[in-house]
Amino acid sequence: MTSSELDLVVRNAQVATASDTFHCDLGIQGGRIVQLGLGLPAGRREIDAAGRVVTPGGVDAHCHLDQPMEAPARMADDFDSGTRSAACGGTTTVIPFAAQHKGQSLRAAVEDYHRRAEGRAHVDYAFHLIVSDPTPQVLTEELPALIREGYTSFKIYMTYDDLKLDDGQILDVLDVARQHGAMAMVHAENADCIEWLTRRLEASGKTAPRFHAHSRPMLVEREATHRALALAELVDVPILIVHVSGREAVEQIRTARSHGLKVFAETCPQYLFLTAEDLGLDDSYKGARCICSPPPRDKRNQQVIWDGLADSLFTIFSSDHAPFKYDAPEGKKPGGEEVAFRHIPNGIPGLETRLPLLYSEGVLGGRITLNRFVELTATNPAKAYGLHPRKGTIAVGSDADLVIWDERAVTLRNEQLHHNVDYTPYEGIQLQAWPALTLAGGEVVWDGQNFHPRQGRGRFLPCATPSLLPSSRR
Amino acid sequence: MTSSELDLVVRNAQVATASDTFHCDLGIQGGRIVQLGLGLPAGRREIDAAGRVVTPGGVDAHCHLDQPMEAPARMADDFDSGTRSAACGGTTTVIPFAAQHKGQSLRAAVEDYHRRAEGRAHVDYAFHLIVSDPTPQVLTEELPALIREGYTSFKIYMTYDDLKLDDGQILDVLDVARQHGAMAMVHAENADCIEWLTRRLEASGKTAPRFHAHSRPMLVEREATHRALALAELVDVPILIVHVSGREAVEQIRTARSHGLKVFAETCPQYLFLTAEDLGLDDSYKGARCICSPPPRDKRNQQVIWDGLADSLFTIFSSDHAPFKYDAPEGKKPGGEEVAFRHIPNGIPGLETRLPLLYSEGVLGGRITLNRFVELTATNPAKAYGLHPRKGTIAVGSDADLVIWDERAVTLRNEQLHHNVDYTPYEGIQLQAWPALTLAGGEVVWDGQNFHPRQGRGRFLPCATPSLLPSSRR
Amino acid sequence: MTSSELDLVVRNAQVATASDTFHCDLGIQGGRIVQLGLGLPAGRREIDAAGRVVTPGGVDAHCHLDQPMEAPARMADDFDSGTRSAACGGTTTVIPFAAQHKGQSLRAAVEDYHRRAEGRAHVDYAFHLIVSDPTPQVLTEELPALIREGYTSFKIYMTYDDLKLDDGQILDVLDVARQHGAMAMVHAENADCIEWLTRRLEASGKTAPRFHAHSRPMLVEREATHRALALAELVDVPILIVHVSGREAVEQIRTARSHGLKVFAETCPQYLFLTAEDLGLDDSYKGARCICSPPPRDKRNQQVIWDGLADSLFTIFSSDHAPFKYDAPEGKKPGGEEVAFRHIPNGIPGLETRLPLLYSEGVLGGRITLNRFVELTATNPAKAYGLHPRKGTIAVGSDADLVIWDERAVTLRNEQLHHNVDYTPYEGIQLQAWPALTLAGGEVVWDGQNFHPRQGRGRFLPCATPSLLPSSRR
Amino acid sequence: MTSSELDLVVRNAQVATASDTFHCDLGIQGGRIVQLGLGLPAGRREIDAAGRVVTPGGVDAHCHLDQPMEAPARMADDFDSGTRSAACGGTTTVIPFAAQHKGQSLRAAVEDYHRRAEGRAHVDYAFHLIVSDPTPQVLTEELPALIREGYTSFKIYMTYDDLKLDDGQILDVLDVARQHGAMAMVHAENADCIEWLTRRLEASGKTAPRFHAHSRPMLVEREATHRALALAELVDVPILIVHVSGREAVEQIRTARSHGLKVFAETCPQYLFLTAEDLGLDDSYKGARCICSPPPRDKRNQQVIWDGLADSLFTIFSSDHAPFKYDAPEGKKPGGEEVAFRHIPNGIPGLETRLPLLYSEGVLGGRITLNRFVELTATNPAKAYGLHPRKGTIAVGSDADLVIWDERAVTLRNEQLHHNVDYTPYEGIQLQAWPALTLAGGEVVWDGQNFHPRQGRGRFLPCATPSLLPSSRR
Repeated sequence: MTSSELDLVVRNAQVATASDTFHCDLGIQGGRIVQLGLGLPAGRREIDAAGRVVTPGGVDAHCHLDQPMEAPARMADDFDSGTRSAACGGTTTVIPFAAQHKGQSLRAAVEDYHRRAEGRAHVDYAFHLIVSDPTPQVLTEELPALIREGYTSFKIYMTYDDLKLDDGQILDVLDVARQHGAMAMVHAENADCIEWLTRRLEASGKTAPRFHAHSRPMLVEREATHRALALAELVDVPILIVHVSGREAVEQIRTARSHGLKVFAETCPQYLFLTAEDLGLDDSYKGARCICSPPPRDKRNQQVIWDGLADSLFTIFSSDHAPFKYDAPEGKKPGGEEVAFRHIPNGIPGLETRLPLLYSEGVLGGRITLNRFVELTATNPAKAYGLHPRKGTIAVGSDADLVIWDERAVTLRNEQLHHNVDYTPYEGIQLQAWPALTLAGGEVVWDGQNFHPRQGRGRFLPCATPSLLPSSRR
Repeated sequence: MTSSELDLVVRNAQVATASDTFHCDLGIQGGRIVQLGLGLPAGRREIDAAGRVVTPGGVDAHCHLDQPMEAPARMADDFDSGTRSAACGGTTTVIPFAAQHKGQSLRAAVEDYHRRAEGRAHVDYAFHLIVSDPTPQVLTEELPALIREGYTSFKIYMTYDDLKLDDGQILDVLDVARQHGAMAMVHAENADCIEWLTRRLEASGKTAPRFHAHSRPMLVEREATHRALALAELVDVPILIVHVSGREAVEQIRTARSHGLKVFAETCPQYLFLTAEDLGLDDSYKGARCICSPPPRDKRNQQVIWDGLADSLFTIFSSDHAPFKYDAPEGKKPGGEEVAFRHIPNGIPGLETRLPLLYSEGVLGGRITLNRFVELTATNPAKAYGLHPRKGTIAVGSDADLVIWDERAVTLRNEQLHHNVDYTPYEGIQLQAWPALTLAGGEVVWDGQNFHPRQGRGRFLPCATPSLLPSSRR
Repeated sequence: MTSSELDLVVRNAQVATASDTFHCDLGIQGGRIVQLGLGLPAGRREIDAAGRVVTPGGVDAHCHLDQPMEAPARMADDFDSGTRSAACGGTTTVIPFAAQHKGQSLRAAVEDYHRRAEGRAHVDYAFHLIVSDPTPQVLTEELPALIREGYTSFKIYMTYDDLKLDDGQILDVLDVARQHGAMAMVHAENADCIEWLTRRLEASGKTAPRFHAHSRPMLVEREATHRALALAELVDVPILIVHVSGREAVEQIRTARSHGLKVFAETCPQYLFLTAEDLGLDDSYKGARCICSPPPRDKRNQQVIWDGLADSLFTIFSSDHAPFKYDAPEGKKPGGEEVAFRHIPNGIPGLETRLPLLYSEGVLGGRITLNRFVELTATNPAKAYGLHPRKGTIAVGSDADLVIWDERAVTLRNEQLHHNVDYTPYEGIQLQAWPALTLAGGEVVWDGQNFHPRQGRGRFLPCATPSLLPSSRR
Repeated sequence: MTSSELDLVVRNAQVATASDTFHCDLGIQGGRIVQLGLGLPAGRREIDAAGRVVTPGGVDAHCHLDQPMEAPARMADDFDSGTRSAACGGTTTVIPFAAQHKGQSLRAAVEDYHRRAEGRAHVDYAFHLIVSDPTPQVLTEELPALIREGYTSFKIYMTYDDLKLDDGQILDVLDVARQHGAMAMVHAENADCIEWLTRRLEASGKTAPRFHAHSRPMLVEREATHRALALAELVDVPILIVHVSGREAVEQIRTARSHGLKVFAETCPQYLFLTAEDLGLDDSYKGARCICSPPPRDKRNQQVIWDGLADSLFTIFSSDHAPFKYDAPEGKKPGGEEVAFRHIPNGIPGLETRLPLLYSEGVLGGRITLNRFVELTATNPAKAYGLHPRKGTIAVGSDADLVIWDERAVTLRNEQLHHNVDYTPYEGIQLQAWPALTLAGGEVVWDGQNFHPRQGRGRFLPCATPSLLPSSRR
């Protein structure tokens, strides 16, 4: 190789990794980073970072795209619009969920999901599995085979009637994770408690969106978190608790760690920027837009989540993007009606806003370091799901997935966003930064003003074994 | 610059930083890393890493060299032998202590310590301060001025008659740390408890070295740790607890963090590889060699420390190298006598063995990841004391301080070591790795067989503000 | 009334209540205590306590007698032999369980149980209910009516296939407790975990009695305890956790209390005097005799239970008497066979030994005060289940249920006991005391040598609202 | 004895002890209770309790009377007015402090204090010691001798310049407690922290009374509490933490207990009925009336204290009566001036209001049971300091110290009180009960309207070994 052969040189970058910040040029060849250095020779193309911060492209390890739903619900984003939105917000890898429905083979679910993704994505993608029907066939054949083939993480639901596993099934599935080195993610809320509270609320006519939060108080999450941790301890396997919302779950995680359990934890923007009040102070229906589970809590709990991001409590910061239109019969108004909260699809959009929100309030707001930002949004998700070091960092040999940050005031408006949802829960929020450029595999996909589409540019990534934990080399 | 001008190319390295591991060549110029890339052009000199792991040179942030002592005690290592030993064990930066004695001006202590270091060191060094006499002059003039000049960290002792501060003095000193952005390190043991226990032990004739451990049970450390954390909380300033030895102090730190306090923690090899039994099972005097404070605990507490290294409890792994000869009148046998434990100088040597011990049992033993090893031994100490990114990482622009690791079985013998101490507490231990090469500022100081001395190569490093914590940019 | 009318005077007693110890004579009339004083006039009968300790007759609030079982299992003690055994060990009130089987009406279960008790008991009795099938009929009609009629406590099982409730059912039942002021008792072990572990043990041929303990490790109890406490917190109702076995459940209870939850806790002799080793160190079957759930733990956990008795962690000390013969086809050898541990009836006898064990090792061993002994074994159980002050104390107006203690060394032998079981798990243990006399309703039922039978002496006690908690009088 | 000899019969009483409540008549002879029974024969005198609640006379185990002070400060109550006030509020035993001043012999302090008490008290009294100068003489001779003579408890101060002990002195004194079975009480606040904060407040002109609370935040109490518990753990001796004010100290006590430490805890009315706001919302001086240490906290912490009274966290409820006039040169206005908070004598009056406050809001307010009220205010203090069963209960053989409660609405006014202080911090508070009658040693000292003085009626009580803890009888 001679330096003259570089496809692209990004000059004058303030590069941040999960541990370091340094000034250099980046040399890119064949979609990968091949050089980091001072004064690199000219490339075929050149981009001047002008001394701005350059971070690895985001890895959004918790997002839902085109996931099959029961009618009339339908997700607003598919792999096209979803990855478009991701790219424009600085995310260059997404890991949505291939969801098994009860009675279905897990492999069939995966194959179906590949059909939905194939040729449509603008950025690279991997799949988590959702195991909702752990038959002996699934446990002993399908799941082990799929893990070997690169589907090395799966999600366990402790709530939602069509998805939830009982404790015995969770133990079975965790045991597969342990034997085959997969990563188990857990949605921890107690289904029976939610149902019991929902019925009582309904019985007293409390069906407006805001009562969604009343039906899922923090102890519902705490109970399930403690139970999930106990089950993992029994099986002796690491687990990852997704979308942790506040103090009570955080305390369970801290306690488990202090007893030596390997537990990872994820949180999301909604637990930093929303509160239960966003579901409505009165019985107005518009709070339906912010219905997600667990629900946002309050200001004190937002601080608990910030503290957990600043110290090492949280491993990963994801969007939990679950896109439903507000004013649509397939979205938050099922069949076009304003319905009781129980019937409103759960989830909010967030793929495009995840990084700017955390960069603005976390990094520029002095709450987390720039390196911690990279770790939470890119490096750790890539490690947790076996995509590192190809994804999640800026290093020699890694994919040339980058974001150049433009530190300027932006008032967030849904009309600026590129998802297929008719609202953002963060409408009107003041941001202090937005990507000036997103590079995916060495190609510009967002230039700060315009999206540069190329469906099929994004390819499926088989995942290796998670690398967050050490392994003995003796 | 043209590539032909590189002073040195290290080829075929498996580079590890605190977050990433990647394969590349390193280009070095003027003592600094200027290129990381695949297939770098030839340098004036070349070193073949042959695919081996390359880590940043270690930063030993807690070591004592040539520190003035009350006669007859004298430290066995000065800046010459100490940094020689460091280099041969892969450590390329040391931060010993400029210790104020009561009645002395702090600046005089610093100036004296510069005279001891000047022209003698083989690797770079910075100074922590030890504040033992916080007069108004010290608090309002000397300390602020010294912080501005690059002495940005200082140590507070809660024990040792000649060094300890009372709670009011600690508050005063922490307040200076807060106002001027310095890092306060705390030796947390309750002096009165130790004295009370020591007198009782002495009264019953229990003066053999092993009773040193009896005089400092874990609750003595726990109490002082809780107190130090409370004082820091009162002042609202981050602190760093040094040489944490076991569960009780660990629990205090976890609790403080869960309440939002910014607290950093350090541990040392003696709490992983020694136990109180190494101070003797009978009244033999040879246990004097392992006398250090806090004393090593037991196997269960070793596991607590390993757990804290694996998760994020500990920030820094240091040696607390405090070199005293065993069989010498200025060392563990004051005046040549076998004395009561109270009179035996506290401290053990460890500069040279710190990295190989942790690499062998931590990384190769599957207890911590390679990246965490780098973080604990180099990146975090450099950040905590304002030396990063010049020190503590492998990145464009950083000093060319490197270790190439040779993963092979080694039985540790003191005769192989380069300190000026007549024993190592780890004699006979089986290691799985040793540095094959240490590079300091681009120069080979250790080639796996021989030390390459050059006194004066090591220069004083003024320290910037600690960078472990975020700062607002708004 | 004139003093000459006293039926009975017990002279020279060292009376202990849950709070006080004092010397006096006791005047008894119509089965009740009517006088406490110095130098009472002569009664029709006189008993000389000779300065010995006199405590209230024990209230055993957790014992199983003649409870309907699935064949071939059958309980060895009915109301005759069970209350005989109770009386000879100083217990004068028992509260066994009227157990609903699935599909059965709760009232039918109660009526059936009355038929089993009627005319057979030698000491007074009340009933707890076991709710295993909380149909709407049970929740809205039967249970409220039964509570009003004096069945003010019921037990919830979180394990055992034929008894366990799911979380939604538990919430429903706790809500009834809250609305009607009843006391809910919870057997807290996670059924799915036990089943999962049992299958794995069986799959590897580990079916000997000792593996019973492996199938129910402490975390199985901890998980269910945390869950039960969370459910009670959701409903906002006090609960009582029965047969707490060790540290992990204890910690959950402490934490819940520190958050303001009203939680009561019970423990039993097996957690003080047995360990898992009593289930066998090898695959011998005789460990079947000590199979109970939760299983006994280890010496360290025995200490945790002692500590919880000494401080205020525990409210009640019961036997959990569950009598099955060892060498009988209806007992620990179902059908006469030595079977896998899963099939061995759970439970051990303990009605008669409960008080002497705790008096000997607790009071005389210096671990708890005499007053605390009374509180744990008599006063608190009577308060918790609405029988106080008629039962559980020595006071004017209370039933004349007394024990005079003989402090002398006794080696415990099953042949000395009066139950209908062919073993005691405490065979050979050294006791320091045994009742010299038991008085039930003013009648001598045990004179230190002989049992004085009178079936039908014992009568059913309808229970009032529990009185452990305060109630507002404003 | 014949019944006709009874000096006094109290008829128709609803007697409450720490464990039981029962209806009976009480027979009193020679100042002691000799009979409890139904239908007692006529006594020489008769009092009709008319079915009202009768509790043991209160034992106020923490009050200051005529304690020598540095001029100009002088306590407003001596043994005359103090015990008068006690009696009118239902308290029949007081335990004030014989305080050693530095340089003084402890025995001299005791003798001096006897001279102040002799012949003046209307109710019985014992002495705690305050050890402020633990010389070898004190530790090895005076204190052991005084303990033997009936001074079995002493108080250790961790703050106040003239009283505080350092950690080494505390260890020495605790060791005496351990060897001689005495009870050590600890005032836990960190002196250095208070001084440091006070200076900073003063430096910024914040000297109004309300800043007293700012100078003693809860962490100052938490730190000292943790330290005291650690010192007690080191010595292996029970201790009692006095006047616990809120959550942070409570958590330390819970944690210590969960580790098996024997720790008792006291709280006082000011932590239930006052908040820091009572020290003033502006710079007005009248908040000086509520200056005490630790200062009252806030509503949330009041709830924590209520929770600790309801469960078993607290052992004792005392007044910490420390009487200083507000508008007097020897009181809250030293020399007649309004001074900086540092110079205002610490303490508030409370002897007379302690029981009515707790009875009204605790018992009648449904927060604690009537039995718990007795336990906290009478039985436990008597046990903790070796006065039980003579004091602190209603039982055969106990002193005839009783309160008959009149449950009626009372608006508290200082003019109704009998202390020698010109204010009560509880002015205007609505009470629901007040003693209708106080009996001390069988004599009426308060009849609901009038005080019945008899100086010298109260006698000194030598204390036995504390009886809260079990002792082995083997």
